[in-house]
Amino acid sequence: MNPSPIHDLSRLCIHTITTRPWSIETSIRQYAEAGVKGITVWRDALVGRDPAAVGQHIRESGLHIVSLCRGGFFPSVDRHKRSLAIDDNRKAIEEAHQLGAGLIVLVCGADPGQSMEVSREQIREGIETLLPEAAAAGVKLAIEPLHPMFADNRSAINLLSQANDLVEQMGSPWVGVAIDVYHLWWDPHLEQEIARCGRNKALFAYHVSDWKTPTVDLLNDRGLMGEGCIPLKKIRSWVEAAGFNGFNEVEIFSDRYWQTDQPAFLQQITAAYLKHV
Amino acid sequence: MNPSPIHDLSRLCIHTITTRPWSIETSIRQYAEAGVKGITVWRDALVGRDPAAVGQHIRESGLHIVSLCRGGFFPSVDRHKRSLAIDDNRKAIEEAHQLGAGLIVLVCGADPGQSMEVSREQIREGIETLLPEAAAAGVKLAIEPLHPMFADNRSAINLLSQANDLVEQMGSPWVGVAIDVYHLWWDPHLEQEIARCGRNKALFAYHVSDWKTPTVDLLNDRGLMGEGCIPLKKIRSWVEAAGFNGFNEVEIFSDRYWQTDQPAFLQQITAAYLKHV
Repeated sequence: MNPSPIHDLSRLCIHTITTRPWSIETSIRQYAEAGVKGITVWRDALVGRDPAAVGQHIRESGLHIVSLCRGGFFPSVDRHKRSLAIDDNRKAIEEAHQLGAGLIVLVCGADPGQSMEVSREQIREGIETLLPEAAAAGVKLAIEPLHPMFADNRSAINLLSQANDLVEQMGSPWVGVAIDVYHLWWDPHLEQEIARCGRNKALFAYHVSDWKTPTVDLLNDRGLMGEGCIPLKKIRSWVEAAGFNGFNEVEIFSDRYWQTDQPAFLQQITAAYLKHV
Repeated sequence: MNPSPIHDLSRLCIHTITTRPWSIETSIRQYAEAGVKGITVWRDALVGRDPAAVGQHIRESGLHIVSLCRGGFFPSVDRHKRSLAIDDNRKAIEEAHQLGAGLIVLVCGADPGQSMEVSREQIREGIETLLPEAAAAGVKLAIEPLHPMFADNRSAINLLSQANDLVEQMGSPWVGVAIDVYHLWWDPHLEQEIARCGRNKALFAYHVSDWKTPTVDLLNDRGLMGEGCIPLKKIRSWVEAAGFNGFNEVEIFSDRYWQTDQPAFLQQITAAYLKHV
């Protein structure tokens, strides 16, 4: 039941969206100064920058680039929009390659104007279209199952079992799963599906935050680890038992925290990481 | 795939919470005048009334009492609060008996201060404690799985498969399931679990509304049928294929609709029922 103890920040990664008020340059400097060792770059942070130069800057600062967020959003009732989504994912693969990120996280998408079954089929088609190009670029793709409250327009993949099914159907070492506790903590089959994901060698990423009571916004009210009811240590023990030894990535969307002093928030993150993850 | 066509309001039931601004007396009169044939009574509507007299009033108005909402909320870290919850459920059984409602819907509860496994065990214990008393009163109990966005403090039962598991474990004809499309529409196993629920003779109630995009509040932003992405006709076809021939119950929590003219809203409900359910 107990995961390995966390004594330092060597496996801590932070998503740039977590400190959204900061530019990517500020995030890199602040994370590195705080002793954080990993960064996941959101694509909005790259706007107007040369991804290769940002990647070099990150590595020179002593940080590891864990992943690029995010690709996906494949389904649409509109064929032209589906084609545009494929193009945008190709651009993400190129950005990841230039940045030096070995992984892209996929928020798979959904369209409330069509059935979930059709959206799921379009997701499968989209990923299969991209896989050869991702492999050629040396970039893996991670399907992130999203909480069912996002099933209408953000993801038709809402259970870890569905992501595992997709990965098994595709049978490629370039596609796996990103496990985010915020989306999956409540699932009664979580432990067994994490183990299955590990057996598939498909557990590519692990994201942490917390679920607050009450939660006042569906999207941007995530809690800092320890503020909510997600059994973080228990889930990490399952993830590690499944063979995962990568970064623990802090991904918090929070209007509340984005409005606070970001250096103080970063201190809270590192403290909460050591205590609660 | 196609459910039986709906030509009239003979199987339409409305939950009093749907027209919350109205007293129970106004709801009874308005529903009956609109040709609605069923009513599910929320307990807040009974405050200060004699349930037996309200029941008689409902029947004399030509309405069928489909269920009483709601019992449950069994889990707590505090033993005294668990005991109070049992007492309150006993009161609900008595109210249902007096009202003449043959069914109580259970929102099972959860406590973010303890694990979901412990909450689920307390739910099972709570229902098992009540079952003999419910049977003696001639009142059935329906476990309502709630959307995973309510897993923190409203229900540790979030999938129809979990409710079906519980019902099978208990093996009593007095405990079954309430299927609410708002909570369950996204589940990839919904069709098979509805069929399983039918085989168990446990499909006690069917609730409809819709999921809007965007949804701006976790609790009180449900849509009128047709406003959202829930495949209502498809799900009703599954429910009917499982042997259900009871009322289709409209249960909408909506700050938006509660602020509008309620007679006009009732007209919208009956029109949406005929067109979209």
